Parts: sequence; structure tokens; C-alpha cells
Amino acid sequence: MIYLDNAATSFPKPEKVYDDIYTAMKEYGANPGRSGHKLALKAGRAIYETRELLCKLFNIDNPMNIVFTYNATDGLNLAIKGLLKPGDHVITTSIEHNSVLRPLKALEKIGVETTIVQCDSRGSININDIEEQITDNTKLIVTTHASNVIGTILPIKEIGAIAEKNDIVYMVDAAQTAGVYDIDVKDMNIDILVFPGHKSLLGPQGTGGVYIKEGIEIMQMKEGGTGSKSNLLIQPEMMPDKFESGTPNTPGIVGLGAGVKYILNRGIENIRNHEKELTRYFIEELKKIDKVKIYGQCDADKQAPVVSINIGEEDSSEVSYILDKVFDIAVRPGLHCAPLAHKTIDTFEQGVVRFSIGLFNTRQDIEKSVEAIRKIVKEI
Amino acid sequence: MIYLDNAATSFPKPEKVYDDIYTAMKEYGANPGRSGHKLALKAGRAIYETRELLCKLFNIDNPMNIVFTYNATDGLNLAIKGLLKPGDHVITTSIEHNSVLRPLKALEKIGVETTIVQCDSRGSININDIEEQITDNTKLIVTTHASNVIGTILPIKEIGAIAEKNDIVYMVDAAQTAGVYDIDVKDMNIDILVFPGHKSLLGPQGTGGVYIKEGIEIMQMKEGGTGSKSNLLIQPEMMPDKFESGTPNTPGIVGLGAGVKYILNRGIENIRNHEKELTRYFIEELKKIDKVKIYGQCDADKQAPVVSINIGEEDSSEVSYILDKVFDIAVRPGLHCAPLAHKTIDTFEQGVVRFSIGLFNTRQDIEKSVEAIRKIVKEI
Repeated sequence: MIYLDNAATSFPKPEKVYDDIYTAMKEYGANPGRSGHKLALKAGRAIYETRELLCKLFNIDNPMNIVFTYNATDGLNLAIKGLLKPGDHVITTSIEHNSVLRPLKALEKIGVETTIVQCDSRGSININDIEEQITDNTKLIVTTHASNVIGTILPIKEIGAIAEKNDIVYMVDAAQTAGVYDIDVKDMNIDILVFPGHKSLLGPQGTGGVYIKEGIEIMQMKEGGTGSKSNLLIQPEMMPDKFESGTPNTPGIVGLGAGVKYILNRGIENIRNHEKELTRYFIEELKKIDKVKIYGQCDADKQAPVVSINIGEEDSSEVSYILDKVFDIAVRPGLHCAPLAHKTIDTFEQGVVRFSIGLFNTRQDIEKSVEAIRKIVKEI
Repeated sequence: MIYLDNAATSFPKPEKVYDDIYTAMKEYGANPGRSGHKLALKAGRAIYETRELLCKLFNIDNPMNIVFTYNATDGLNLAIKGLLKPGDHVITTSIEHNSVLRPLKALEKIGVETTIVQCDSRGSININDIEEQITDNTKLIVTTHASNVIGTILPIKEIGAIAEKNDIVYMVDAAQTAGVYDIDVKDMNIDILVFPGHKSLLGPQGTGGVYIKEGIEIMQMKEGGTGSKSNLLIQPEMMPDKFESGTPNTPGIVGLGAGVKYILNRGIENIRNHEKELTRYFIEELKKIDKVKIYGQCDADKQAPVVSINIGEEDSSEVSYILDKVFDIAVRPGLHCAPLAHKTIDTFEQGVVRFSIGLFNTRQDIEKSVEAIRKIVKEI
């Protein structure tokens, strides 16, 4: 099988990720931060090591400012809902995932005001359009780093600068970029960074996280046992305990650490260049096929390795079904949980066939995909 | 090492749990319920199978009424905060974990009224004391099934009957019992059952769940991509999608399924009897040692396999430290994230040394623990 659904979750992972998870479960499967025995301490240290690795990757100073979550959606909810209060205004874009848009829509009911800045049909945003929307009560700008539908990379450093200038919190959803594109929270003025663990960070499903800059006030959504200040009935304020109630996913976090270690060893630039080259080649070849419509930038330098197409007016689910059934190629059709992005690129009815490239894809995978598309075009 | 911290997380797990997780990651590590390709479908089916196994264990009719969460705390917050509104009254007990008490304390700030019914010094509750507290606005009774500090089992069937009679929602925190004690949501009138995946259900950390009876209205805490109704900016109402936004922990849930399968195959009664026998033996032997104070029921038939002690006035952390350092026995000291339970048994200052027995403990483990305690008593 050729797996080209890496934007949903990366597959496969480095062998070391599987092995470290297995070892964590089998050799030190205790509850970290609770008891003080050797096994619990070992689990606690392993989790701390993953925090440190993430700090290295994102240029974060304090490992305790990273909160582990169930997935990126969990982190986005935590940060969006913990930050915004009735009367606050938030600016976002039309290419966001439902993990940003749906929490914002829910908050509108309690009096949070949302402005969705329109991107053009290739997903590009005019940063002046963002700045123009800033009002006295604008508390937050939240944007994706790259569209999960067409890969378009947003100028997060420039948006971060606008946010800083206007004393507004800037939150980045790095679901499609963390682990492949450079993210430097300090240089880019990112106040809150949300990332999944199981996509390009190469960790397992069941992991994600949020970096929260010192001084940003976020109310926790959940309370519970934290292993700290157990004498109190109120949630402790200390980080990251405030946001990490209950038993964490130790083996998962260990696996995430193994994924990040792999990235740091191999070099994020090398990974990016590999994926970029495949994306470039794929787009070039697709352009040669009649009836294939390619969405987004059509430029590997301006997009994450996500290439979305349609074949004429064919239903995207039908094409994806054939790719899977006949050619054993795994892609994702439909709306990709991003309805406004599809309205933005005018594919709300048809959806698109999304090919998302990962670290372990090869030139041959792309060649076979091109060949498959050629055949489908011919048959239809 | 002798691991007696199973109330924090069970360790080890059956080999099949590790193996199934490894296989899930390696062979079908796709995102379930999103794309329609073979691998995604396989992941989706595996998750569904775990839902079915849990239904069998808890006598639940509809697998879609089980929601998977990050841990039990996540599930308790989801259910407690999604159910209660300002003006509602909730009844709970003095032996609850902070994962129940802290969310309730947080809700008091928005006008939810809480009554904490006092248990006696062994953790027993008089169910009349619960019934007496019911008022017109009582919306919920939430109790643990068994104390995580002293193991005392609460009469959940009787409490469920009171709740039903008074048309009140009954929520059970089965953190210490699911997988060892019989739980039948229909027979026991349990409307909401919250369970961790990584304790006696023998799954990995990073798993937990909530059963929500049909017709109970709970507001979701999080919104996001659900893979369903992707055209909408509002959270879908369908179960379990309403509460399962973002990528689930597929390998973890597969591991939880393997754990439940193990329990069903081995027989929950056999597991319970094994743990009960060890508990009985441990209590008997402890009673023979001078200076050892045993808390709770001191009766294996009335308590989950959790035995908490102190040695004279010795600090519980100090004793636990020696058990770990000198005897290689892992236990948990302190307050166990249950401050009111410790006030109830009058150990708020000293804490207790908690031994929690699991499926894979042996008679020899208990013998060695008794021996260690004898030696510590002698030395002190």
C-alpha cells in the first residue's frame, strides 16, 4: 500500500517510536508524578525529557510551559476556551480547521465575537486584512500555520509581529507543520503553539500539546488529581499541572519524544527538503495531465506537502475509493473537517482528493500515484 | 521489584495488550473515521470492537453510547461539567477523588450547589444520609464505586435505586473497580459510568471512557473535527462524535480492547477472587504486627484490593521511601489526590502508605511485603 494520508496522521513512524513505546509500557509502566518509587520516577523523567526535546525544536525556554494533551483539538479547545471571555474579540482565517472554527462558533453563544478573514482562492492571506480587523477588544489572533486542505503556508512570523505590535495574543495551530517547518516561538512571537503529536512529530496517536508563554492567563477546562497540592480542593496554578489532571499518556509521550529525537537527529531541513522535492515533482507531473485540477499554490515552496486535486467533475470520494481499491493508494477525500477552506477554494460540493506526503514516502510512491491518476482520467 | 501501586495504574499488563498496541501502530496506524481507505477502516473497526467489548463487560446496549477519553479525569470533567448548570444541586461523598471534587468546587463558582455526604471513619456511607440531602433542584448524585485510599466499596446499586426513585442522574466513578468488580449499568441504574482504561481494565495509559445513557443531555466541552458533518461549523449531536473531537488514541484503545478481552476470557470473578484472597491474607498478616495501623474496612469482602497502613507516627512518605529503596517494593504514600477521604479517616497530616494489589501480584509479593513491614517496624 502507498500511504498518502500523512496530514491525517503520519504512517509509518520510525521503528524507534514503536520500540520506545513498547519499552515504556513493559519496563516502566507506572504512573508518573504520583508515587515516589523508582518506576514512577523513571516515567516522570521520560515525560520531562519529551518536554525538553520539544523545547529544543520550538525554541522554548521552560519545559514546564508545555502541556500535554490528548490531541491538537484538545489543545486548541484548552487554549481558545481558557483564554477568551464574553466580550472578547478574536480574529481567524477562512482556511482554518473545524478544531479552531467549531470552538469559536461555540464561544459566540457566550458573547465572544469572531472575525473570519477571507483568504484568496489559493489560500493566501493579506496580512493587512488581519490588521484592519483589530479593535479595542481584540484579545486573540488564531491561525493555522498551513492549510490542511491545500497546504498553503501562512506568514506566521508577520502575523505574530502584528499581534505583538497590537498587544494581542497570537495562537498558532501547527497541526500540518510541526516537525517539518521551522517554528521558533520567540522569533515568531507565538504566544500559544498547539501541535499534534501524531502527525509530522512522528509520535503515536493519543498525543498532542500546547506551549503557553509565561504570563498568558488561561483558565483550565478540567480539574482533577495532579499529584501536586493534593491537600487542596482547588486546582493548583503551577505549570503544567494546572492543565494536566489525571494520569498522562506516558508511553505515548515517550513515543512522541522518540519522534522528536528522530527529527532532531535527521535534521528538520533534510526532512522538509525531502517532502518538498516529492511535492514539487508531484505537482509538475499532475500539471501534465488533462482534466486534473490542482488546488492551492501549486508551488512546493509555498505549501506544506499536501496536494489536493479533482478529476473533472468526478466526486472526490469516488476517485479516492478507486485509488484505494484498484491502486492501493490511501488518500482522503471530502471536506477534511475544514468547510470554510473548501468554500474558499470553491470545492464545498465536490470536495477534493487530498494526497498528503510524509517523511517515508518515496519518489516511486509519487510516480505510482501519477500513473494511477493518469489511468483513472483515461477510464472516466 | 514488587509493584503494589495498581490503584495508580496497573502494571504489568497482559503481554497481548503490549503486542496488540504494537501491531496497531505498525500495521494499521491510520486515522479512523476520517478517510475511507482500507487502513483507516481497519482502525475504525478496531475501535468499534473495543466499544463492543466494554458493552459486554458493563451490560451496555449501544456501543455508540461509549465515549473514549484521555483518562477517567477527562471523562469525569466531561460528564460533570456537561451535565450541571447554574442552580443545579449535586450530592457526593467525602471519600471522592479530586477528579470529582475539584470539578465540583470549580462549578460552585458558577452557581452549582454541592452537598458532600460524610462517610464514617472506615469509609462507609449511610445511604439514608444521601437520600435526606435530595432537594427539588438535585440533578446529580456522583459517587465513587470504591475509595482509592482505603478501598471501601460503596453500595452503588442501592444509591442507583435512590437516584432512580427520585429521578436524579446517577454517575459512578469506577476508577478502582472497573475490570474487577461487577458493574451492570442497567441492573444498578447507573446513568453515567466513568472508567479509566489503564487500571484494572488493563489497557495502556492515555485511555479512559464514559458511558452515557440514552436520553441524558450532556453539553460537550470541546468541539473540533469529528469526521462527520464536516460541512457544519457546529458540533454534531450524534454519538459518540459529539464528544470525540480530533484524532483518537487508536493504538491505546486497541490495547484497552485487548485488556477487556483478557478479563472476559479469564473471568472477572476469577480475577476478583485472586485479588481478594491476597487482600485477605495481607490484612490478616498485618493485624499481627504491632504498631501497624490498618485503615478502612479491614475486610476483603468489603473493599477493593487497596490496603492502607501507617507505622506508628512515621511519615508515610518516609516508610514508602524505605519500602522502595531497601525492599524494592513500590507503593504510594501521601494523600492520593483525595484530601477529604484522608480527613474522613483522620490521616490528613500523616497520609497513609497505600498498597494496591493487582492481577499479577502473587502470594509471595504479599509475604515479602509483610516481611518488609516487620523489619521496618523493628528498625524504627
